[in-house]
Amino acid sequence: MTERSRLDRQIDFLVEADKLKNTIRATELCDASRYENSAEHSWHLTLYALVLADQAGPGVEIDRVIRMLILHDLVEIDAGDNPIFGALDHAAIETAERAAADRIFGLLPDDQRDALRAIWEEFEAAETPSAQFAKSLDRFQPPMQNLASGGGSWTDFDVTEQQIHDRVGSRIAIGAPALWDYARRRISAFFEARRAS
Amino acid sequence: MTERSRLDRQIDFLVEADKLKNTIRATELCDASRYENSAEHSWHLTLYALVLADQAGPGVEIDRVIRMLILHDLVEIDAGDNPIFGALDHAAIETAERAAADRIFGLLPDDQRDALRAIWEEFEAAETPSAQFAKSLDRFQPPMQNLASGGGSWTDFDVTEQQIHDRVGSRIAIGAPALWDYARRRISAFFEARRAS
Repeated sequence: MTERSRLDRQIDFLVEADKLKNTIRATELCDASRYENSAEHSWHLTLYALVLADQAGPGVEIDRVIRMLILHDLVEIDAGDNPIFGALDHAAIETAERAAADRIFGLLPDDQRDALRAIWEEFEAAETPSAQFAKSLDRFQPPMQNLASGGGSWTDFDVTEQQIHDRVGSRIAIGAPALWDYARRRISAFFEARRAS
Repeated sequence: MTERSRLDRQIDFLVEADKLKNTIRATELCDASRYENSAEHSWHLTLYALVLADQAGPGVEIDRVIRMLILHDLVEIDAGDNPIFGALDHAAIETAERAAADRIFGLLPDDQRDALRAIWEEFEAAETPSAQFAKSLDRFQPPMQNLASGGGSWTDFDVTEQQIHDRVGSRIAIGAPALWDYARRRISAFFEARRAS
């Protein structure tokens, strides 16, 4: 068997990554025409980072945030998406995602395997300002989709306003408090209109 | 009418950008299950930039390349995708894409409209090393998809190996000569196998 070149291994990884386009999320497109996949969601988040960079606190490096968001969902190729309003077994998810990271980043040449894995680990740990901001954007985009599509995953999972506060709001507020303030007001208006209808 | 806040305008833009997920390209996914859309394609290209950064020549700033790739297809929301092997009216495409850029970037607050438009203009002009590398990646990814899917847009458009050299190879070679060398060898083997079958 011929030894795989560095470029062969890089392309193997990039072709494998294509599968993220087939990982379906619980969130709908803004026009409610279909569910979003994790690849296009990842792109959308990088655009959120570019445009909402003025919401980032001290110590946030936007280019690093963007790199995290490019990579953050790759493990879902093996582990699938876990809707935030579903029943979540956090330990099982973490085990599955770590095994996925081993396999998928392991396709790369060793130096890149380690470098990209480190970016993903920083995102997962959510301790640095950049990771906290990236996590906040990842939680902020789905409510914007649901508000645009008329309910989306909130309707599918029969979610209450309080559940959004608990499961999503607290996390948005850590890295981007003004974004949660904005989302909270719009979510409140959405549920008020729904009660009135 | 209430005046729209800065954040309202940013969210208007981000919600409008969601439509790129419905712009369908001529390239198939690697598993040939469906055609790729321009949003997930844009994500894939940012990953190409991260992984293939070691192919970038002097003067290339990878984080700027990534920003270009995030933004490069947004105009297709209005102007659509133009398959490289189709019949192309370049003047008409440019007019449509400039009008699209005016409208779509125009949704943003003025300072961001100008900053993001400048990144897109740099990509389109293809004069800086970063833009040339970004353009090369944009031409390099579809052949990798076609090789994986067993022909893809080459089959749909009845494309010859020489046409790939003329329309794609020359452009990949400008910003990433080693990537074209790699693609050329694999494309040659692909067409040889097809002739033999």
